[in-house]
Amino acid sequence: MIKAKTKLRVRYGETDQMGYAYYGVYAQYYEVGRVEAMRLLGFSYKDVEARGVLMPVTDYAISYKKPAYYDDEVTVVTTISEMPKGARIFFNYECFNQNNELLNTGKVTLVFLDKAKNKPVAAPDWFLQELLKHF
Amino acid sequence: MIKAKTKLRVRYGETDQMGYAYYGVYAQYYEVGRVEAMRLLGFSYKDVEARGVLMPVTDYAISYKKPAYYDDEVTVVTTISEMPKGARIFFNYECFNQNNELLNTGKVTLVFLDKAKNKPVAAPDWFLQELLKHF
Amino acid sequence: MIKAKTKLRVRYGETDQMGYAYYGVYAQYYEVGRVEAMRLLGFSYKDVEARGVLMPVTDYAISYKKPAYYDDEVTVVTTISEMPKGARIFFNYECFNQNNELLNTGKVTLVFLDKAKNKPVAAPDWFLQELLKHF
Amino acid sequence: MIKAKTKLRVRYGETDQMGYAYYGVYAQYYEVGRVEAMRLLGFSYKDVEARGVLMPVTDYAISYKKPAYYDDEVTVVTTISEMPKGARIFFNYECFNQNNELLNTGKVTLVFLDKAKNKPVAAPDWFLQELLKHF
Repeated sequence: MIKAKTKLRVRYGETDQMGYAYYGVYAQYYEVGRVEAMRLLGFSYKDVEARGVLMPVTDYAISYKKPAYYDDEVTVVTTISEMPKGARIFFNYECFNQNNELLNTGKVTLVFLDKAKNKPVAAPDWFLQELLKHF
Repeated sequence: MIKAKTKLRVRYGETDQMGYAYYGVYAQYYEVGRVEAMRLLGFSYKDVEARGVLMPVTDYAISYKKPAYYDDEVTVVTTISEMPKGARIFFNYECFNQNNELLNTGKVTLVFLDKAKNKPVAAPDWFLQELLKHF
Repeated sequence: MIKAKTKLRVRYGETDQMGYAYYGVYAQYYEVGRVEAMRLLGFSYKDVEARGVLMPVTDYAISYKKPAYYDDEVTVVTTISEMPKGARIFFNYECFNQNNELLNTGKVTLVFLDKAKNKPVAAPDWFLQELLKHF
Repeated sequence: MIKAKTKLRVRYGETDQMGYAYYGVYAQYYEVGRVEAMRLLGFSYKDVEARGVLMPVTDYAISYKKPAYYDDEVTVVTTISEMPKGARIFFNYECFNQNNELLNTGKVTLVFLDKAKNKPVAAPDWFLQELLKHF
């Protein structure tokens, strides 16, 4: 299992007139969490793209429990709890505020895509080998 | 049933380095679609807030079929196909590009919140009355 | 002279907790206005990139007079009032709300960049020829 | 003089299809830098608003020298080099990438606004007192 914790502070520009961190901003927070989870495997997502593999999102779901507010410190907990299935890989999320209150939970599915062919491909061996060390 | 169609053109700042409209941008597109769906009821979301009711999102899920690209004209089809349940209201989405290709489908659940009390409340009567005319 | 008027409605996600359209959002509004100004020349910015020319921004300045609020209809008036100088082209801006109140004024300078060489180049002839028709 | 250094990593959602951090994203980076500069005074911008003072931006100018790319670590250097003039305060900026290359320089002017009266006011004494310690 991979578990990464990333801290992000809510920016003013990320709030909306309700005073909440806008519901759409978590897509970015989750993306940042995902990248930090991958770094635990020994490579950055930038490296992944440099090797000719893109990883677009195919499914994204989020349940909001509590809002985050301006200047809150949000901890994004990103978990990879299962090995990729074919071309797909799954990330689970929990966000907490500085009082350790659960803000939201979510799940994101990404697909491995051959950049040159623009086609889904099985998770690359070099990716799986690093990931397997954690399972 | 309420069905609203809203056209949005993908902005340069909404693309990412894959050349796709960033996966997180659809939260805004869906929000715009939602607002247009409400306008068919005879009021704007701005009016709703002015009446002391906030409508934060509690659940958001989206499945991506195809990416949108820069300068694409995206049609957001927003549907309210059932009456609110207690404090909750449900919006369903489909996005299409200018070639009528399905880009993604999604569902958003919002909760009616009494602004002064910061508590969920049943959908207001004036909201339900307008909505009922479409069912 | 080229003058383009583009209407944009302030999205909820573009507001901040002051209730203003976030000061950073006008970079996108100006970008949209710029693209519409170019369309009056007979091509889209997408076409420009397809011909191997990128147009990144080198200078951007904006003066805010009044805020825009959620659901306001903002008119972006984009003007090209002088021919490009070497590799540089200049866009001037005024934004108004639905009450015709001036929200802000600005100026953006872009540079023509050869995509393959990643070097500034003089404005392409096909661009200048179309532009000259308006001067 | 106040000088704050803030590190930010370019998010995927902040890139555009040129592969650059979108030119509009620096408004947020500068905002984050500004907040960190204020923290050196012993209060957060959140505190400022809680005391009934808003600080909207009146002028913003930025000159881009080099783009930042995805996953770059950007250092925002924020400087307050002069005392506020009446209701106005000035922040100067320089952004660098991880190779210490200058990415852009900028200047932001904010106005102190009485939240209740919605009117510009002279910089509050408690603000000036803390600031003076650095001059």
